[in-house]
Amino acid sequence: MKLATIRIDGATRAVRIDEDKAVDLGESDLVAFLRRPDWSARAAAANSKTYAAEGLDYAPVVVAPEKVVCVGLNYRNHILEMGRELPRFPTLFSKYARALVGAYDDVILPASSAQMDWEAELAVVVGAKVRHADPEQARAAIAGYTVLNDVTARDWQFRTPQWHQGKTFEATTPIGPWLVTADDPAMAAKGLNMTCEVDGDIVQKADTGDLVFDPATLVSYLSEIVTLVPGDVIATGTPGGVGHARKPARYLADGSVLVTRVEGIGECRNVCRREQW
Amino acid sequence: MKLATIRIDGATRAVRIDEDKAVDLGESDLVAFLRRPDWSARAAAANSKTYAAEGLDYAPVVVAPEKVVCVGLNYRNHILEMGRELPRFPTLFSKYARALVGAYDDVILPASSAQMDWEAELAVVVGAKVRHADPEQARAAIAGYTVLNDVTARDWQFRTPQWHQGKTFEATTPIGPWLVTADDPAMAAKGLNMTCEVDGDIVQKADTGDLVFDPATLVSYLSEIVTLVPGDVIATGTPGGVGHARKPARYLADGSVLVTRVEGIGECRNVCRREQW
Repeated sequence: MKLATIRIDGATRAVRIDEDKAVDLGESDLVAFLRRPDWSARAAAANSKTYAAEGLDYAPVVVAPEKVVCVGLNYRNHILEMGRELPRFPTLFSKYARALVGAYDDVILPASSAQMDWEAELAVVVGAKVRHADPEQARAAIAGYTVLNDVTARDWQFRTPQWHQGKTFEATTPIGPWLVTADDPAMAAKGLNMTCEVDGDIVQKADTGDLVFDPATLVSYLSEIVTLVPGDVIATGTPGGVGHARKPARYLADGSVLVTRVEGIGECRNVCRREQW
Repeated sequence: MKLATIRIDGATRAVRIDEDKAVDLGESDLVAFLRRPDWSARAAAANSKTYAAEGLDYAPVVVAPEKVVCVGLNYRNHILEMGRELPRFPTLFSKYARALVGAYDDVILPASSAQMDWEAELAVVVGAKVRHADPEQARAAIAGYTVLNDVTARDWQFRTPQWHQGKTFEATTPIGPWLVTADDPAMAAKGLNMTCEVDGDIVQKADTGDLVFDPATLVSYLSEIVTLVPGDVIATGTPGGVGHARKPARYLADGSVLVTRVEGIGECRNVCRREQW
């Protein structure tokens, strides 16, 4: 089952995405919808108001989640090829919800950064309130999976040892177009192919089965620290192939087309636009 | 003028704190109240419903701010005494709103951390929506100042190079009891004395005039990255004297009394309680 938040008449609506239509879920966005304890049954049963599938305007899957947690250094092959040891603990940082944009929105390249770089990621959306969750409880708390690109200002990221400031520029992080629920057969595979494409070149390619800390482990770990709530996003980390590590380095430019794809979910396709102000 | 969020009858209310009473501001909390463009005039004029000053139950000054931004390495003397150069850019990280507790609430020491440490800080509360603010616009966007203790799980903070996970444990960060508005005469001083006291020992002592990046500079810098909105909190950093750097190291324990005080504002007084679950 695919769930999304769409923009319509100047507001947003939570919807189920079917082959030929979108079905209204009775809430303004998925964060509100996922707060209903029976959201899964409701989503499956919804059949009242519908919207034509063509021309849907996708908002970020979750518009204003309470938390966006990001994970660094989480692809096994990439860590090993860099000559590093596999980490014992996930590296965590954060971004603010204002960084998020929809799957087909422009990604805004800040006027103040000359090093905007891509980071294709599988993202987890939380579907239940959990604290101190064991791995099984953690797995049950995952609403589903979506596609995210943790577009990063490398020059700002490395101004100080803490990455946060390079990770949370306004309107830089596409997420969507929908979440595929955890119980969907498409999510049963051990790993999903993920790619990032810039102006037609495949720049990242990985299998999400290569994650050191898998989604349930991340939910469990985070829930030791703080209560996770419906709508929270966990961006699970990016594999090798980022532009900053290339020789010569390659960055996103005004007009760059950024396509982020995860098998079984779908793709974000964003045009990059240099900020004007 | 002092503004706060108090708990009453199972809900919260935004109030002005007078000598002898609290005056209701017509909103459920300060985040909502500060969203009103005329909040300052309204706060000054409020005179309807009042509450007795005695026995007020202080919630976090802002209960669920959109952002809590934290600044590291921001006290000049402490940086120089550590033999480091003054930084060109502020070090930024983040915590989630669920870390916040009221000025007299228990601070919860996680069962999973043996190294809970104090970090007294002056906190800024944003009072207007700003982006790309120059220093003057940034100064005008500051609603006021409050007291915060960025209580940190050192063992988790240093598990990885990114500090975030040690900084955002649930119910660890006292903030309050009120904000003193930026136009209050008490805030006119160049620097304010700040102290942190643990079980009666003064463990940190500093002058906020010693900040490398002052509040307006921080607001301006952050607003380059992302839109700041009313209620956003900026914790401006802590001076020397943290427990982790002592020989031998000293940490907070079950029953520890943590008093965080900023001249002209007031104090948080929190008892630390070891988490049971």
